[in-house]
Amino acid sequence: MNPLVIAGKSYNSRLLVGTGKYKDFDETRQAVEASGAEIVTVAIRRTNIGQDPKQPSLLDALPPSKFTYLPNTAGCYTAEDAIRTLRLARELLDGHDLVKLEVLGDPDTLYPNVVETLKAAQVLVKDGFKVMVYTSDDPIIARQLEEIGCVAVMPLASLIGSGMGILNPWNLSIIIDRLSVPVIVDAGVGTASDATIAMELGCDAVLMNTAIAGAKDPVLMASAMKKAVEAGREAYLAGRMPKKVYQASPSSPTRGLIGS
Amino acid sequence: MNPLVIAGKSYNSRLLVGTGKYKDFDETRQAVEASGAEIVTVAIRRTNIGQDPKQPSLLDALPPSKFTYLPNTAGCYTAEDAIRTLRLARELLDGHDLVKLEVLGDPDTLYPNVVETLKAAQVLVKDGFKVMVYTSDDPIIARQLEEIGCVAVMPLASLIGSGMGILNPWNLSIIIDRLSVPVIVDAGVGTASDATIAMELGCDAVLMNTAIAGAKDPVLMASAMKKAVEAGREAYLAGRMPKKVYQASPSSPTRGLIGS
Amino acid sequence: MNPLVIAGKSYNSRLLVGTGKYKDFDETRQAVEASGAEIVTVAIRRTNIGQDPKQPSLLDALPPSKFTYLPNTAGCYTAEDAIRTLRLARELLDGHDLVKLEVLGDPDTLYPNVVETLKAAQVLVKDGFKVMVYTSDDPIIARQLEEIGCVAVMPLASLIGSGMGILNPWNLSIIIDRLSVPVIVDAGVGTASDATIAMELGCDAVLMNTAIAGAKDPVLMASAMKKAVEAGREAYLAGRMPKKVYQASPSSPTRGLIGS
Amino acid sequence: MNPLVIAGKSYNSRLLVGTGKYKDFDETRQAVEASGAEIVTVAIRRTNIGQDPKQPSLLDALPPSKFTYLPNTAGCYTAEDAIRTLRLARELLDGHDLVKLEVLGDPDTLYPNVVETLKAAQVLVKDGFKVMVYTSDDPIIARQLEEIGCVAVMPLASLIGSGMGILNPWNLSIIIDRLSVPVIVDAGVGTASDATIAMELGCDAVLMNTAIAGAKDPVLMASAMKKAVEAGREAYLAGRMPKKVYQASPSSPTRGLIGS
Repeated sequence: MNPLVIAGKSYNSRLLVGTGKYKDFDETRQAVEASGAEIVTVAIRRTNIGQDPKQPSLLDALPPSKFTYLPNTAGCYTAEDAIRTLRLARELLDGHDLVKLEVLGDPDTLYPNVVETLKAAQVLVKDGFKVMVYTSDDPIIARQLEEIGCVAVMPLASLIGSGMGILNPWNLSIIIDRLSVPVIVDAGVGTASDATIAMELGCDAVLMNTAIAGAKDPVLMASAMKKAVEAGREAYLAGRMPKKVYQASPSSPTRGLIGS
Repeated sequence: MNPLVIAGKSYNSRLLVGTGKYKDFDETRQAVEASGAEIVTVAIRRTNIGQDPKQPSLLDALPPSKFTYLPNTAGCYTAEDAIRTLRLARELLDGHDLVKLEVLGDPDTLYPNVVETLKAAQVLVKDGFKVMVYTSDDPIIARQLEEIGCVAVMPLASLIGSGMGILNPWNLSIIIDRLSVPVIVDAGVGTASDATIAMELGCDAVLMNTAIAGAKDPVLMASAMKKAVEAGREAYLAGRMPKKVYQASPSSPTRGLIGS
Repeated sequence: MNPLVIAGKSYNSRLLVGTGKYKDFDETRQAVEASGAEIVTVAIRRTNIGQDPKQPSLLDALPPSKFTYLPNTAGCYTAEDAIRTLRLARELLDGHDLVKLEVLGDPDTLYPNVVETLKAAQVLVKDGFKVMVYTSDDPIIARQLEEIGCVAVMPLASLIGSGMGILNPWNLSIIIDRLSVPVIVDAGVGTASDATIAMELGCDAVLMNTAIAGAKDPVLMASAMKKAVEAGREAYLAGRMPKKVYQASPSSPTRGLIGS
Repeated sequence: MNPLVIAGKSYNSRLLVGTGKYKDFDETRQAVEASGAEIVTVAIRRTNIGQDPKQPSLLDALPPSKFTYLPNTAGCYTAEDAIRTLRLARELLDGHDLVKLEVLGDPDTLYPNVVETLKAAQVLVKDGFKVMVYTSDDPIIARQLEEIGCVAVMPLASLIGSGMGILNPWNLSIIIDRLSVPVIVDAGVGTASDATIAMELGCDAVLMNTAIAGAKDPVLMASAMKKAVEAGREAYLAGRMPKKVYQASPSSPTRGLIGS
């Protein structure tokens, strides 16, 4: 199975997971391990990765030697804020330059502000960051983000934390069709089939947090998501049967062996 | 993980597969093995399981010591035909009594004829068969089939061979809610996410043939389906997050560590 | 515009309405008038059409000289019950023989019991009734009801009183495609667009009750439904544009008049 | 029925129509009249409204004394282009300042370029235009366009000319919920029910072209669309019944008049 390649590095898992909303770092660790994810994203303004040396650090639960960290700008509403946050993250993580940019439009919908996102992406790419970027499912914006030099484009399936699944597969299909960098569905996955559908559409990977952390049994859901992403990827590669409207055909060849 | 129990026997796999439509018995075997299925269904009127001793037999490719055979009545349009076919199967298979009953309404849609199905089920149950029964998604008929004594009820997702997926999840939900015997979605699955959705609804298992045999790479699709069914089952058991319409909440707790 | 013909009689309106669930007979009358319906259906076991001479009668609010009455068997769970109810109705209505047969499966889902429905239809047709018959969206059953001699077949869109709209347009399409008698969607319509969609599929008419009576403003909703049914019928006759996936074309011819 | 108010002017019809893609101006006129539209939009770079005095002019078929003209910038891919085109239109139409701005992202998808659209809107509003603006279904962009001073915001249902209907009703709902200026669904309507659904969501109006011009019988489809928009508006105002999942209730009150 060909690997996912982001910014020149290969990954076997096509599931990326967030680290927020868990009971404690131990549950985070168990869920992340069950998910098989190799890339974990961290809300740099909300998670202790060493800023407070007296508190437990995520770095202990998920050692950076085993996981690729993806600091994100959750909670940022302007380009300026997002840029400052990621520069701080780079310092905290000793020059780590693979980041997830998100600039939100407002705290009620958490819908991305694509204008501020474009601005921030431009600055960050010039500043040497490898930018994976959260965005809407607008195919024109997605292409502009690629042109700026983002290393992955991450359109939403639906609102962050909504669990509504993929509301507009058609826009996602256009984005997948037109971009060369990896397209990763980020936000809106609610259950396993949502992830499978995303992969069947041809997405390169899926990123989620609440769908796992918000399940009754997060660790079991993490395992479900691992399989769901793999199932979707394999189904995409296997090439599904065509849909047949109405004119059904029998499941078995029609030459009969036994007469009636 | 609790097993699937049908007629008192336990199975680890919740994916049942058909054996028709493959290039040859070798491809059938490879796909069945990749699917992890323990129960395989055979169109008794179309497949050689010993009727013609000079031709290759499915029994060699898929030894009955390893797989539970489920002879089916594909191609039967009356109760009488179906009953005769299954009695013949019982003879061919040395008294094997676990069978799949299907009585179809016409050769164009292959939609089940539920009236003839009810008739046949009554006779077959009295005759000592353990009847797994293909039917429409009519919840009243489904319950009647259970009352007659069928050991599993198998409603369609959509027309046989159509690959249209689950057209009416609401009816399936009612059936799942009301029956005590296993409910197995049979017919209409087209790709991996269809199977995942069926399991997330609470179905006990999924049966498919064309979705695997009709894929460009049947063996890889079989593997996808194995994972898809497991993913859906685990997601069902894990308890998905609630869908949140509009009022999204951030993926990470809102207490900030780093000031803006 | 060609009329709807049922049992040899022509109707201009393709909207049939129920008369239950209104505040009083005056509201019933206003809503029915706003709907433009010419056929009104009456739950013979629940509505006073003369059984109790001391109570207000629906016959006064909606004079049979202006409306075609369609006595129905709401609340009947066996063929026997339904047959008895309609014979009583025929007496009450001086030999009126156009009736709506419904035999339900249970009081929780109100899903039709198609086996009992078939039985009752056979008896009633022989007995000289012109039977319009409520049924599931099972295309085989629908055809059997036509073969028995029913004058219209009325498949559900979704459960009675649910307002869920058309859950399985594919089954409806098969029914529409295969039957010669009028196909009337009955039950499940919740709002105007549901009725429009039913007509766009090619249904001959739509029957509803709760969607109008259960709206906040039933009379305004009745007017909406009148227009919705007409809109759907006209759109069906006008022949919609093909859906174009992805490759969009400009709304205006591409020869430019003004240079850029 | 309360009227649609745009930039201080009231309209009785909530259906706006394009004028392109018809056989000739006579068919355009018949379809527009059948639609009941009071506002007609004109691709200023493709339609003769006097630029070429020797050719038939749309102004003769649809006299500006009877219809409100809405010059649009179809075919413009930059803010600059769109601004120049609308200034030209203002000259051609003697100072007419109500315009429809659209800036597209590329000629293949015709998806809006929201960044260029924002730029052009800012300039045009300052320049005294009353700007109705075509945009994506991005709720953040929609609000920014309102803040700039656009008099109506016109999100797409799906790609221009695709007839795919409303792909993401959730985003539309957020936009409707948050904006004070009229929200008009523009692009993507394919058949009558699409228009009804848009209005039921709470849109203030619908604009379409291909759905009418591309139907087999455009004039009949125009009539269908008139009714569809009215039906949707009335249903929205009437307040639909709640959807009831599973627990159906009988269409008629359960007190029986006739014993069984």
